Amino acid sequence: MRLSTLLVCGVAVLAAGLAQAQSVPAPAPGMPSPALMPLPASMTAGQGRLAVDGGFTVALAGPADPHLEAAARTLIQRLSAKTGQFLAGAPVMTGSAPGKGATLTLMVTGVSADIPAPKEDESYTLTVTPGGASITAATSIGINRGVATFAQLVANGPQGWAVPAVTIHDQPRFPWRGLLLDVSRHFMPIATVERTIDLMQAVKLNVLHWHLSDNQGFRVESKVFPRLHQLGSDGDFYTQDQVRQVIRYAADRGIRVVPEFDMPGHTTAWLVGYPDLASAPGPYAIERHWGVFDPALDPTRDSTYQFLDRLVGEMTALFPDPYFHIGGDEVNGEQWKASPAVQAYMKAHGLKDTAALQALFTTRVQAIVAAHGKHAIGWDEIMDGDMPKDVVVQSWRDAESLKKAALAGHAGILSAPYYLDLNWPAGRHYAADPLPENLPAGLESLILGGEACAWSERLSPENLDVRLWPRAAVVAEKLWSPRDMTRDVSAMYARLETVAQDLVSAGSRHEAARTLLLTRVAGPAGLEALLPLAQTVQPLQDYRRSARRPDAVQSTPLNRLVDAVPAESAEARAFSLAVDRFLANPKDVEARAAVLRPLMAWQQGNALLAPHVAATPLLAELAGPSAKLAALADAGIAAAEALHTGKPMFDRAGGEKAVADAADAGAELDFAILPTVTRLVKAAP
Amino acid sequence: MRLSTLLVCGVAVLAAGLAQAQSVPAPAPGMPSPALMPLPASMTAGQGRLAVDGGFTVALAGPADPHLEAAARTLIQRLSAKTGQFLAGAPVMTGSAPGKGATLTLMVTGVSADIPAPKEDESYTLTVTPGGASITAATSIGINRGVATFAQLVANGPQGWAVPAVTIHDQPRFPWRGLLLDVSRHFMPIATVERTIDLMQAVKLNVLHWHLSDNQGFRVESKVFPRLHQLGSDGDFYTQDQVRQVIRYAADRGIRVVPEFDMPGHTTAWLVGYPDLASAPGPYAIERHWGVFDPALDPTRDSTYQFLDRLVGEMTALFPDPYFHIGGDEVNGEQWKASPAVQAYMKAHGLKDTAALQALFTTRVQAIVAAHGKHAIGWDEIMDGDMPKDVVVQSWRDAESLKKAALAGHAGILSAPYYLDLNWPAGRHYAADPLPENLPAGLESLILGGEACAWSERLSPENLDVRLWPRAAVVAEKLWSPRDMTRDVSAMYARLETVAQDLVSAGSRHEAARTLLLTRVAGPAGLEALLPLAQTVQPLQDYRRSARRPDAVQSTPLNRLVDAVPAESAEARAFSLAVDRFLANPKDVEARAAVLRPLMAWQQGNALLAPHVAATPLLAELAGPSAKLAALADAGIAAAEALHTGKPMFDRAGGEKAVADAADAGAELDFAILPTVTRLVKAAP
Repeated sequence: MRLSTLLVCGVAVLAAGLAQAQSVPAPAPGMPSPALMPLPASMTAGQGRLAVDGGFTVALAGPADPHLEAAARTLIQRLSAKTGQFLAGAPVMTGSAPGKGATLTLMVTGVSADIPAPKEDESYTLTVTPGGASITAATSIGINRGVATFAQLVANGPQGWAVPAVTIHDQPRFPWRGLLLDVSRHFMPIATVERTIDLMQAVKLNVLHWHLSDNQGFRVESKVFPRLHQLGSDGDFYTQDQVRQVIRYAADRGIRVVPEFDMPGHTTAWLVGYPDLASAPGPYAIERHWGVFDPALDPTRDSTYQFLDRLVGEMTALFPDPYFHIGGDEVNGEQWKASPAVQAYMKAHGLKDTAALQALFTTRVQAIVAAHGKHAIGWDEIMDGDMPKDVVVQSWRDAESLKKAALAGHAGILSAPYYLDLNWPAGRHYAADPLPENLPAGLESLILGGEACAWSERLSPENLDVRLWPRAAVVAEKLWSPRDMTRDVSAMYARLETVAQDLVSAGSRHEAARTLLLTRVAGPAGLEALLPLAQTVQPLQDYRRSARRPDAVQSTPLNRLVDAVPAESAEARAFSLAVDRFLANPKDVEARAAVLRPLMAWQQGNALLAPHVAATPLLAELAGPSAKLAALADAGIAAAEALHTGKPMFDRAGGEKAVADAADAGAELDFAILPTVTRLVKAAP
Repeated sequence: MRLSTLLVCGVAVLAAGLAQAQSVPAPAPGMPSPALMPLPASMTAGQGRLAVDGGFTVALAGPADPHLEAAARTLIQRLSAKTGQFLAGAPVMTGSAPGKGATLTLMVTGVSADIPAPKEDESYTLTVTPGGASITAATSIGINRGVATFAQLVANGPQGWAVPAVTIHDQPRFPWRGLLLDVSRHFMPIATVERTIDLMQAVKLNVLHWHLSDNQGFRVESKVFPRLHQLGSDGDFYTQDQVRQVIRYAADRGIRVVPEFDMPGHTTAWLVGYPDLASAPGPYAIERHWGVFDPALDPTRDSTYQFLDRLVGEMTALFPDPYFHIGGDEVNGEQWKASPAVQAYMKAHGLKDTAALQALFTTRVQAIVAAHGKHAIGWDEIMDGDMPKDVVVQSWRDAESLKKAALAGHAGILSAPYYLDLNWPAGRHYAADPLPENLPAGLESLILGGEACAWSERLSPENLDVRLWPRAAVVAEKLWSPRDMTRDVSAMYARLETVAQDLVSAGSRHEAARTLLLTRVAGPAGLEALLPLAQTVQPLQDYRRSARRPDAVQSTPLNRLVDAVPAESAEARAFSLAVDRFLANPKDVEARAAVLRPLMAWQQGNALLAPHVAATPLLAELAGPSAKLAALADAGIAAAEALHTGKPMFDRAGGEKAVADAADAGAELDFAILPTVTRLVKAAP
C-alpha cells in the first residue's frame, strides 16, 4: 500500500493522463503537455522546442508603443517566477545583438493608446520554433494576451525549461471580460488590487470593475465632497494618486478600469457625511450588516442631481475609461414609500410605483454621465424603464434579463452565473455560456461579454485568492475561447490544476493562504490533525452561508475553517473519479485501494482532532463536523468493502444514518465527499 | 497505526509538551504557553487573560513621538494577521472613549529622534491584566520592542485570542543587534528589504547592515558618479528616493540602517564605470563568479581619495546613521604586487607588505569618513594597522579578532558564528556567545553586540526567507536576552517552531516559499513524491556548497532541491528526539512506532520519485539521493526492528554500506537523518 499517499491530494491524479479536448502535443518524449486557459482559438503543433534558460532575452519591434516594454517586463518576471531562473531584467531592442540563447520578439504593427479602449484588437499570433519565438499583434494589448499564453506554455522537461514549437492564432470571443472586485464590503489594499490585476492578465481578463462604494464603505478620495471618504470609509480608501497608480498598472497589462458608484440604493456610506442626500433624515452610520437596506438617494430633489453632477464630474475626470457604472440594483423603495414628500412628488409626476421613480432617477443620472462624456452601465434593474439604448446592462439576476436587454436594443454583459463568492464548483460556472439561449441572430453582437464577481461580504485580503483562483480562470475561458472549445467540463478540470500552479507563479496566494489559514485554525492541534476534515469540506454554496449566519457583520472574523477552504475540494474531486473507476470494476484491487486510502485517512481525522476541540473556539465548532466525517468515512469504507467482496454492507442502517447526518455538516460547511459516499452506499449490496 | 501522520512534520511533537527553561504559565486550563524569542529579561505571570478581539484598540499616551503611531499601526497589523480578525485600523488617543473590549496603552516618557541612535534606551515595561495592558518606554524605540513581545504573547485559547496576564521588565543585553543583507551578489527588491525589516522588528533586531556594493553589483544610485550604478548594477539598484523610503520604514520600527561600501577589495562593480580607480588598467566587467578577486582600488594615488571623498560625502548625506561601513575584507594584494607603480610607492614609503599598504588606505579612508562626520566600521582585517580607536571592528573570521580589537581599545561586533548562509543548525548559532572567552573585565562594554549575516551568493529574493527565518531569531536572542537565559539549546528548540509560526504572521514567507520551491522542483512528479526526500535533507554546511560547485555564477539558478529546503529539517530533528526515546526503551511499542512511521514513509519515497527522475533536470539530480535515502531508511528500519526484538539486525553489512554511502548524499545535500540512523545501526544487536 502506498502509505505516503494517504493524505491524497488529487493533484497527481488530475494532472496526469486525463484526456484533454485540445492539447499541445508534447514536444519531446516525457515532456508534459502544458495546460492553457483560456484555450487559444487556433493552435498547431510544430517540431521541437525552444529553450527558456539563462540566456533568454526579449526583443521589441515596431513603433514605440508605450506599454510594450511593460508587457515584456511582465513576461520576464513571470518566467523568472515560474522557472526560478535569473532572467535578464531588461528587454533588448531589435538591432542589438541577441543574447546567447533564444530570443522572443514582441512585434506590434501599431501603437496602443494610453489606456485600453472598450473594443481593442486583442488578437495575436504566437510562433515558436527551436530557433526563436515571436508574438505579433496590432498593439501592446494583443502582445499582453500573447505573453499570457507564452508564459503558460513554458514547462520543465528532460532538457530543462522550454516552450514547445507551436503556431497560435488567437483572438477573444467577447470584448468585455471582467472581474468585479467589491472593495466596499471589505477593503482590499492597493497591493491586493495590483496582484489581482496581475492574475487577470495571466488569464486574459481585461476589465477590472472596481465596486468602489456601497452601504459599508465609500472607498475613493473625493476632493469635492471629502466627507464621503472621511466619514464613510473607516480610513480605508484609495487616494486619487493611488487610483491613478492602479489605472496605470492595469493599462500596462491591457486592462481597463471601470469604476462603479452604485446608486440610488447601496449608498448608506455616502449618507454618513451627506445625510441630506437621503430620502429620510439622518444621522446615518456606516452599515455593518449584510443585506438590502432602506436608505436611498432622494430622486425628487434637484440638490441630489447637483451633488451627483459634481461627483460624477470629479470621478469621470479621475477614471479615464469611457464607461461609468452607476449601479442601480436592489432598491427596495422603502424610504420612498415612507416619505410624504416623495409620495407627493410621485403623485404629481404620475409615477405609479417606486420602480418608475427609480427609472426617472436612472434617466437623469444617465444624462449627467453622458454630459460628462461617458457611457453609463448599470445592473439589470435599470432596465425597468425607458433608457437610452446607449446604456449597457449588466445582468446579475438571471440570463433572461440579458436577453430582454438585447431585445430592447441594449448591449449587455452577463454576471448571473459567474458569482465567485457563491462558492460554486468550477464546472458549474463553466457550464454557463455568456450568450442567452434562443437569442435572435443579429443580436449576438450586443452581448459584449461578462464579468466574474467577487462580492466581499465573506472575502478578506487574506482569503481573496482562495476565493478567486483558479475558478476565475474558467470564467475567463468562457469569455475568451470559441464556444465549441468550452463545452467539455472534464477536460477543463484536467487542465485546471496545472493552470492553478501557473497562477501561483503569476503571484496567486491561493495555496499559501489556504495553508496559512488552515494552520491558524488548527492552532495547537497542528495542521496534520485538521487536514482530513479540511480536504473533505467546502463552504456552503449560494446564499446558504448568509442564511445560516444572518448575524454576521463587517467585523465578523473570516478566520474559520469555512473561510480557509476553497470552494471546491481537489481531494473530493479526485475521490469521486476514483469511485467512478471502482464502481465500474469493484473487484479490482488497485481500484479498491484508491478508494480506501483516502477514506481511511479521513476516517482517522477525528481521532487526531477530537482531543483538541476544547482548545480554541475555531476548533470547538469543528467537533460536530469532525465526528460526522468519521462516521461518513466509516460508511464509505463499509460500502466499498461490500462492493468488493459481494457480501452485504456492514451496518447498513448505521451507514445510512451517517449519510443522512452528513447532509448538514455544520460550521457553514458541506461535505464535498457526501455525494460520492452516497453513491457508494446506494450501490453496495 | 496513525497512518495520517506518516508524512511527519515534527511540528506537533516539538510544540507540545517539551519543557521550556522559562515559560509564561498558561493563563487558563488548556491554553498553550506562548513562545517568546528573544526571552525577556524579567517576566512574572499574573492571573487571568486579556482578550484580543474585535473591540481591541490601542491608545497612545505621552509626548507626540513621531514614530509612536507607526509602532501602534505595526502592532495592529501584526495582530490582525496573527488572529485573522478585523481590528481597528486607527489607534485611539487617550482621552477618547476606549473601544468596547480591552485597550492597550502605549506610553512614552520622551520623544525619539527622527532616526534611531546607536545607543538608545530600548527598555520597556509591559503590564497585562484582564482589565487592560500597557507598554511604557522612554521613547517609541522601546515601544517597538514591547510591541514585538506583545504580539508574540497573543495566542488562541478556549475563550478565543488573548494575552496572558503578565508583567515584563525588559532591556537588551547588547545595543547593536544587526542583520547584514547582501544585496550585491543577488539583488533584493525594495519589498523584500521592507519585509526583512518587519521580521527584524518582530525579534528586536535593530541594525540593518546594508551591504550595498561588491564585485557583483553596485546597488545604490549615485548622482555624483552615476556610472557606478549605471554600469555596475545590471539595472538592479535602489534610487536615492528608495533609500530614503527604506530608512524611514526602518526608523518607524526603531531600526538603524548602516550602509556598507566595501573597499579597497570587493570593488569590481565600481571599476566597470570608473576603471581608473583600479590598481591595474581596465576595462572591467561586473564579476559573475564567486570568491576573492584581484581588483582593488589604488591606494597610492590622490585621485582615488578625491573620488572617495566625493562619494563618501554623497553617501554620508544620504544615510543618516552615525556609522559608515568601509568594508576592508579579503584584499589579496595581487594587483598591488603586480603593479610596478604600486611597488615603487610601497618602497618609497617604507611599506613592507600589502597589508601595510591596506592599513595606509584604511587610515586615509577613515579620515575622510570622520571629516564627513561619521564613525567608520570595518571588517576585522582593518585592524592590521594603527587605526584610531574610534573605528569599530566587525569580526567575521573568528571571535579571537574581536578580543584582539577590544584589547587594542576598539569597540566591536561579532559575526563569525552568525553566518546564516552557511546553513548551520540553529543550535550551533545559539551556542556561540557574542562575548569572547576570557575577555578581561572592564572591556565587556567594548563588545557592542553582533550581526547575523545573509551573504547572498546562494540566496535569491525567492528563497531569502527560507534561509533567514526562523534561525535569525536565535541570533537575535543571543544578542538581546540575559546570558544565563540563552544556554539551553533544547529549550530554545522547544520555542522555535511556535516563534516561526509567529514570524509567518509577521510576514515571513519561509513556509510558503519552501512549498512553492519544492512544488517547482517536483514538477510532474508531484509534491507528495518529493516530500520524503525533502524532509530528510539539508544543504551542505559551511563552504562545502561552493567547494562542490565552484563553477556556480551569479546567474546560476537557485531553483534546485538544495535551494528549497531549509538549513535545518524539522522532521529530522523530531526523528532524532523519537530515536532518543526509543533507544531508552526499545521494547516500548509506542516508541517503536514513532521511529518506524517516518522511516517507512522515507523508505517509500524512492518508489514515488524514481519513475519521474528523467522528467526534468531538477529531478534527474535527485535519482541518486533518493535511492540512497531508501537504502538508509531500510537500514534504520532493520536496526530498529533488531533493537525492538533483540534479534540480530537483518543484513547488517548492507545497512552499514547504506550508512556509508549516505555520507555523500549528492546534489549539494546532506542527509539530516544520517547521524540518527547511524546511532540506530550502531546500537542495534
